[in-house]
Order: sequence, then C-alpha cells, then structure tokens
Amino acid sequence: MELSLNTATVRKQWNLAQMIDGCARHGIRGISPWRDQLAQMGLREAKKSIREKNLVVTGLCRGGFFTAKDWKDDNLRAIEEAHELGAQSLVLVVGGLLPGSRDLRKSRDAIRDGIAAILPHARKAGVPLAIEPLHPMQAAERACINTLEQALDLCDELGDGLGVAVDVYHVWWDPKLASQVKRAGKRILGYHVCDWLSPTRDLLNDRGMMGDGVIDLPLIRSWVEAAGYRGFQEVEIFSELDWWKRDPDEVLRTCKERLSQC
Amino acid sequence: MELSLNTATVRKQWNLAQMIDGCARHGIRGISPWRDQLAQMGLREAKKSIREKNLVVTGLCRGGFFTAKDWKDDNLRAIEEAHELGAQSLVLVVGGLLPGSRDLRKSRDAIRDGIAAILPHARKAGVPLAIEPLHPMQAAERACINTLEQALDLCDELGDGLGVAVDVYHVWWDPKLASQVKRAGKRILGYHVCDWLSPTRDLLNDRGMMGDGVIDLPLIRSWVEAAGYRGFQEVEIFSELDWWKRDPDEVLRTCKERLSQC
Repeated sequence: MELSLNTATVRKQWNLAQMIDGCARHGIRGISPWRDQLAQMGLREAKKSIREKNLVVTGLCRGGFFTAKDWKDDNLRAIEEAHELGAQSLVLVVGGLLPGSRDLRKSRDAIRDGIAAILPHARKAGVPLAIEPLHPMQAAERACINTLEQALDLCDELGDGLGVAVDVYHVWWDPKLASQVKRAGKRILGYHVCDWLSPTRDLLNDRGMMGDGVIDLPLIRSWVEAAGYRGFQEVEIFSELDWWKRDPDEVLRTCKERLSQC
Repeated sequence: MELSLNTATVRKQWNLAQMIDGCARHGIRGISPWRDQLAQMGLREAKKSIREKNLVVTGLCRGGFFTAKDWKDDNLRAIEEAHELGAQSLVLVVGGLLPGSRDLRKSRDAIRDGIAAILPHARKAGVPLAIEPLHPMQAAERACINTLEQALDLCDELGDGLGVAVDVYHVWWDPKLASQVKRAGKRILGYHVCDWLSPTRDLLNDRGMMGDGVIDLPLIRSWVEAAGYRGFQEVEIFSELDWWKRDPDEVLRTCKERLSQC
C-alpha cells in the first residue's frame, strides 16, 4: 500500500505549496489536502503544482457538517473542488448535534437528508463521497456517525456514489470492525492511519505516529486489503504536543519509516 | 427512580463515613461505594453505619480488570465484600489491553475467561455481576468491552448471574442504544447518570452534572424504564476541574435538584 500525506499532519509547519514540494522530495506519491489550505494557495495554482509533481489526490478534506448553517452551498463547492482536483473522494465529516440540541436522532436524520441532497451533485461530478465515522468521543461536536456499521447502513440506504473512509484512530476499538470492514468491501474509499496513544492527553489533537500507540496496524490493514481495497494509506496525525512541533521533513521521513515497519 | 450516590462523586472531599452521613442528611436512600474507601473505613464499620442509616447498597465498585495480574484473588474478595454489604450487584470494569499488548481479541478473550471463572463464586454468594461497557476512549487502559451490544453478547454466552450496568456517559452516543437497552431487559442491574460536557477537557475526569451537557437523560431513562428496570439511578461524576472542588453538601443538593428536573 502506497503512502499518501494527509496535509493535516504538517499543517502547523508548512503551507500547501511546501507540502506538495515535500511529498515530491520524499517520494510520497499521494496527497490529501484540506480545503482551507487549498483556498489559501488558490485552487488553480494547487492543481497545477500537484500535476507537475505527479501526485495522486487520494481525498479532499472535507465536506460534511450537515448540522451546521449553510451546509449545502459549502458542500456543493467542496464537490466542485474535488472534481477539479481529480480527488479520489470527498471525505465527509458529517457534523455533530444540531445547534443547541440534545437530539441525536434528529441530528442523524439531518445528516442523512444532507447527504441525500448532495449525492446527485456528487454523482454528476464523478466525485465519490466517503463518510468517515468518527470516534464516539467526537459525537457531540464533529460527527454523530460513530461506527462503520452505522455508516454502512447509511450507504445501503442512499445507494451508489457513497462509501466510507476508514480511519484506524476512530474505529480501532470496535468489536465489530473486522466484520464491518468485510461488509464494506469495495465501498472503502480511503484508509487513514496514525496511532492511539496510551494515555491520550487530548480528545482531538493527541494522535500518535504509527508504532507509538496500541493500534494493531498490520491486522487492520490485512482486513482492509482482504476486503478488496487497493488504494493508498493516508497518514493523518493531529498532534499539538508532538509532531506539529517537529521539523516537517523529519515528520515525513518518520511516516515513511514507520509504515515500512508496520 | 430513586437517587443513589456513587461515592466517586465526592471522593476528593469526604471519606466513606462522611458520605454515608451525607446521604442520610440529604435524604438520598441509595449508595454505591468504592472498595478503596471501604477498606479505609473497614468493612464491618461501613456495613454497620450503612444499616443504621437505612441505605440501600445499589452496587459495589468495582471488580474486573481481568487483564491485570492477580485478577482472580481480587475479584473473589470483591464478591465477598459485595455479599457482606448486600450490594445489589458487583460492577465490573473489565480491564483494557493485556500488558504490553496490542491484541484486542486476546484481551477480550481473557476478559471472557475471567468472568467465566468468577461467575460460579458470584452465583454461590448471591451477588449479580454487572458488566459496565466503558466508552471507547477508555478501551486501551480500562475496559475493552465498549458497547452494550458487546456486553450483552457476553451475557448471552455466559448465562445466569450476569448482567450490565448502563452508564449514560459511556453509551449515550451509541446508534444502537435504544435497541440494546430493550434487548437487555431485566439484565440491567444498574443505571448510572451524569452528563457529557461539550467540549470535554479530559478523557477520564471531566464528567458533567446532569443538565450541564448534551445527553438526553429523560429519553434514555424512558428506555431503561420501558425495559423493566425498577432500581435506583446512581449519580457518578468524576470531575477534577469542577465538582470535586466544591462543597460536597452543595454537590449532593445539586444532584437532587437536577435529577428532579431531568
């Protein structure tokens, strides 16, 4: 499985232009940029630079947040950008509870309706949408789709053009992970890696480098491959206390080394 | 549903003798003590004092940690103590990954085998064992039973004398919560309440007072009652940054007020 850089991994050190150059310099063939970085660099410029360096855009981060205001326009723009970049998918972080609400069911219904509303546009643009189930500890604020099973139920309901992004950080603990990865099959549109640190000091930005935590990466990768996934593995590390403070070239070197070991 | 005090809620302010007095003073009829507090006070003394105040011991915290050394002796002692106190159940926090291991499956197997090993002793002592599924964010260190479905599968496998403790903090996010609470039925041996704060600042000790967070307590309570549960609701708040710093009488008054509103 080839390596892709989710640009969040070095977002405190580099801008997108530097990230694209960094990938090329380190022989990393995939990149998954965030939309704020894209906006800062300019879509046209980014596209040009990514082409020049022969990088594959393994995903665009992110659409979603269907429980927020103005979700529709923003998602339609995200689909256009993903199309423009030739991204393999648009990753959906679906959003947490509706503002001021404790109603998980209603929030989840809004998310389903939001995905259903943008799906025809995504199909027309040829952009697969990848629901990323987020860890239950992020249910309130970021995503109340929290298991692979729940995401796949939604895929079953809404049909073609929709799949999942499997991020080990969010799903490693799930007793049904093996069976649901198998069920997902070709609907796995992205595979994200990092590690779960023990202890974890922050609910959002304390992810670990592969090998530094407790996730059995070779095992999960074997399930994902057995399910038929033939894409990249995307490194996505939010690390306020460690990797965001380091020399970004060291970060990229370490990602490569660790993945060759795991 | 009557109120029970899980003594962790005021553990930084009071010893067990003070907690027992506090419950009586505030008209709280249930108590669920922790074993370290019990050891400090002395089992005989605690039993006498709890009887004098006419309190119901709604649970004993805790047995479990089947992935640690010496789990067996410790659990057998816990069963004896629960029997001695007439506790309605012994709560099991089952333990995280085996030491130095990334093998969730092996760790979960060890937990199943551990519960199977102590279950005959618990049955003989008339002490129901309550598996408490813990939030997935505590899978590595404290419990790799992380959903109600998983806990109930284990109950199905191991048979009589085993049930679950449903703590809203651990399970509120679960898309299958309603159906699994229904499935649990009479196997619900305890119902624990607090709230999920948004944002949450710590993975272990930042629980909220009922009403201060995003959990729909009346809804979950309605499911638990519909499943046939007729026991107490036990308030269990770990709160390093807030409630552990307050006057414990204020904490108990607030618990009562909030539960009458939720």
